[in-house]
Amino acid sequence: MTDPAHTTEGHAATEPDEAVYELASGRLEHDLVEALAAGDGARVKDLIAPLHYADVADLLEHLSADERHALIDVIRDDFDAEILSELDETVRDEIIERLGIADVAAAVAELESDDAVQIIEELDEAEQRRGRGAIPAGERTLIEEGLAYPEDSAGRLMQRELVTVPTFWNVGQTIDFMRHSADLEEDALPSVFYDIFVVDPAHKPVGAVPLSRLLRTRRPVPVTEIMDAEMKLIPVETDQEDVAFLFRQRDLVSAPVVDDGGRLVGAITIDDVVDVIHEELEEDIMRMGGVREDDLYSAAVDTTRSRFSWLVVNLATAVLASLVIGLFEATIEQIVALAVLMPIVASMGGNAGTQTMTVTVRALAMKELNPTNTFRVIGKELLVGGFNGILFAALTGGVAWFWFGSPALGVVIALAMIINMVVAGLAGTTIPLVLERAGIDPAVASGVVLTAITDVVGFFGFLGLAALILL
Amino acid sequence: MTDPAHTTEGHAATEPDEAVYELASGRLEHDLVEALAAGDGARVKDLIAPLHYADVADLLEHLSADERHALIDVIRDDFDAEILSELDETVRDEIIERLGIADVAAAVAELESDDAVQIIEELDEAEQRRGRGAIPAGERTLIEEGLAYPEDSAGRLMQRELVTVPTFWNVGQTIDFMRHSADLEEDALPSVFYDIFVVDPAHKPVGAVPLSRLLRTRRPVPVTEIMDAEMKLIPVETDQEDVAFLFRQRDLVSAPVVDDGGRLVGAITIDDVVDVIHEELEEDIMRMGGVREDDLYSAAVDTTRSRFSWLVVNLATAVLASLVIGLFEATIEQIVALAVLMPIVASMGGNAGTQTMTVTVRALAMKELNPTNTFRVIGKELLVGGFNGILFAALTGGVAWFWFGSPALGVVIALAMIINMVVAGLAGTTIPLVLERAGIDPAVASGVVLTAITDVVGFFGFLGLAALILL
Repeated sequence: MTDPAHTTEGHAATEPDEAVYELASGRLEHDLVEALAAGDGARVKDLIAPLHYADVADLLEHLSADERHALIDVIRDDFDAEILSELDETVRDEIIERLGIADVAAAVAELESDDAVQIIEELDEAEQRRGRGAIPAGERTLIEEGLAYPEDSAGRLMQRELVTVPTFWNVGQTIDFMRHSADLEEDALPSVFYDIFVVDPAHKPVGAVPLSRLLRTRRPVPVTEIMDAEMKLIPVETDQEDVAFLFRQRDLVSAPVVDDGGRLVGAITIDDVVDVIHEELEEDIMRMGGVREDDLYSAAVDTTRSRFSWLVVNLATAVLASLVIGLFEATIEQIVALAVLMPIVASMGGNAGTQTMTVTVRALAMKELNPTNTFRVIGKELLVGGFNGILFAALTGGVAWFWFGSPALGVVIALAMIINMVVAGLAGTTIPLVLERAGIDPAVASGVVLTAITDVVGFFGFLGLAALILL
Repeated sequence: MTDPAHTTEGHAATEPDEAVYELASGRLEHDLVEALAAGDGARVKDLIAPLHYADVADLLEHLSADERHALIDVIRDDFDAEILSELDETVRDEIIERLGIADVAAAVAELESDDAVQIIEELDEAEQRRGRGAIPAGERTLIEEGLAYPEDSAGRLMQRELVTVPTFWNVGQTIDFMRHSADLEEDALPSVFYDIFVVDPAHKPVGAVPLSRLLRTRRPVPVTEIMDAEMKLIPVETDQEDVAFLFRQRDLVSAPVVDDGGRLVGAITIDDVVDVIHEELEEDIMRMGGVREDDLYSAAVDTTRSRFSWLVVNLATAVLASLVIGLFEATIEQIVALAVLMPIVASMGGNAGTQTMTVTVRALAMKELNPTNTFRVIGKELLVGGFNGILFAALTGGVAWFWFGSPALGVVIALAMIINMVVAGLAGTTIPLVLERAGIDPAVASGVVLTAITDVVGFFGFLGLAALILL
């Protein structure tokens, strides 16, 4: 949406994204590429200096490998490690290699512990060892503790810098404590936080106080009086996907993380969860599209290799469909119109099944299907398949009759259409359910199984009915 | 991931979701359905009472229409309006109807203004008029102001309750002001907030102070000394999708919203943005699957109708493919093996194209494609198509030769495969780009255009080459 206040600035009127995203117009990149080509380091630095680290990350992603290396060499000395957190994995690996592990470690030491863990965990083991050596001891301990938790767990996500107060403190003591810590050493407190946690003598969390409430309360009031005692405690091993679900489900902004003994070990804040929500959904989109992971910035050879395996699986289902057609070679030889029409039935079944499957896969991911409503959903999809089957039976039956002048052929395609659309509704719901039950990610595997079924039923139904009715 | 601390509790060990999501096991729902069937209102209330409003919303979604009505009637008197914010649209409409507009208005009046707007905007006009009448005047004004902004804009998303302080105040004055407001009237301040905003005499924002920083600073320090002056100002008309992009790109937690004159009118916080990020991605997933919107809870007839239109478009492309096959009826009549093998070429092109298209559509949504790298990405996908084309040409050529004992047939399918895979790479990148440029949502339309192209090229290439080489 164009910001009316900006429309007088010329290009803003034709570049609606400009208002929110500086790189949208591409002019900056154009200037940068020119400066890099001319070897004008000073101009490159001038162009980069005013940018947010996320925009620098985007620029690095957009450049060709050579330009990227040239840019890294120019900005190496004041490289902001936050850039690394924002990069696509493939590009990040390349840049870490170009920077060298010593420069990376120096940059990473400047980050908060949770962000630092996120970078270090991507390095291979030898790099990790060398990298950690270059990080100061205090920071290193926090990072190593973070790395000790399982990948994609709450422990990796959480901030370990926390503000905790005992149950017997009041608001005044808490504020004074924070002011005092700020005076002593900046690093003892997280740079930004939203809640302080009240803990018992065993360091178990008993309540949380949002800062906005703390600020509105008079100094003598005990913290236990204004704390929220009903908190959702997150076990440190919880998968990040479950953490994200919980934050969305409960509209949480921050949540305490506890170890096996129930002791407070960290806190997860919503800004960390936003990235998880986004990543998990992007991952699902990629998987449903048959891509293992976003490979926009991967080399052609790597992309070919990673997509090949998925296409092989699809080839198997295509050959299966061909085998079914092969059963009816004799029938097709007599009525060649069947070869012309047969893809219609298979394709419509595939599309109707994909619609149902998409809704079911998402419902599973959102934990919306359970014993109470699963059968009702399957029943509904059968009904939808039946309704649409009848509608498209009429349409395609009419087309076939008109095209080949054979009412019998129209009846055959109409019957096959109804069968395949109902099967599509059944398969679109049950395949994801069965895969989920079997521990297979339904987002990855549902599509290929579904197509196999709708192809086989589509071809077998149509050609089989034709053999029965027309010959 | 199972929480080790809970494994001794019996079912928790076999129900890994239990730790984060109470409804996962389905036992509560089972008990609830029983109590509803028995008409045991007291037991229903007991079961519902300890639940979070989001869980009650989930329960309502899972129930059948009759059970849902029975439950509403039981909990009508102390109905928590937050439940409405968490409901699927279809179910929400049904429940609002059952509750009656007076009860809905009474419940909505309890919400924060941004949440209330979210409910009211879903009502039809007559309901809105009646609903607003039942809401107290002060709250109503805020809601009506919210509704005056365009749908899906920053104005609808923002909280209008704000803490603003003049530039000449210090930390002590700010804290005293907040404590004083809290004493006077609870409603003057938002219930939870993360930043206070420093404004000039024209009420233009000049800086933001995170609460955690305010708390760590001594009373005499001026707010201008600790504020962040570099804020991203969001124009009130900005589309919510751009707002979400900005929050992710800049790792924002809250941002001031300004009107056309640059005056501060509200603030968006990250918890509002989380829902937008999630909705927009879910919407994209649904669209890529050929579903207009999540219709899990819609009636079968409504679902049939909304999916029908998409299937009609697909029928058109399927008929187009059939027309292409029809051109080669004479060829198929002579070599019926062509009918058996032809779906393989079309299907592999479709799958390879879908992989490329998925990556491209997401890259566009994430603003990752621009003049600098677009041609490089297209070039890469052509290369990937070529590489995989050659690999699958060898595979399918071998299969065809072995199956039908004809090396010439193997050569035909191999050549057709290479052509279609390269076309798939080209189409998978350029179709989304062209659609986006034409103002058509690439997530909706790319798939059907892609399939049309890979089907036509697949069938025409294979059958055409066969006619040329084999006859």
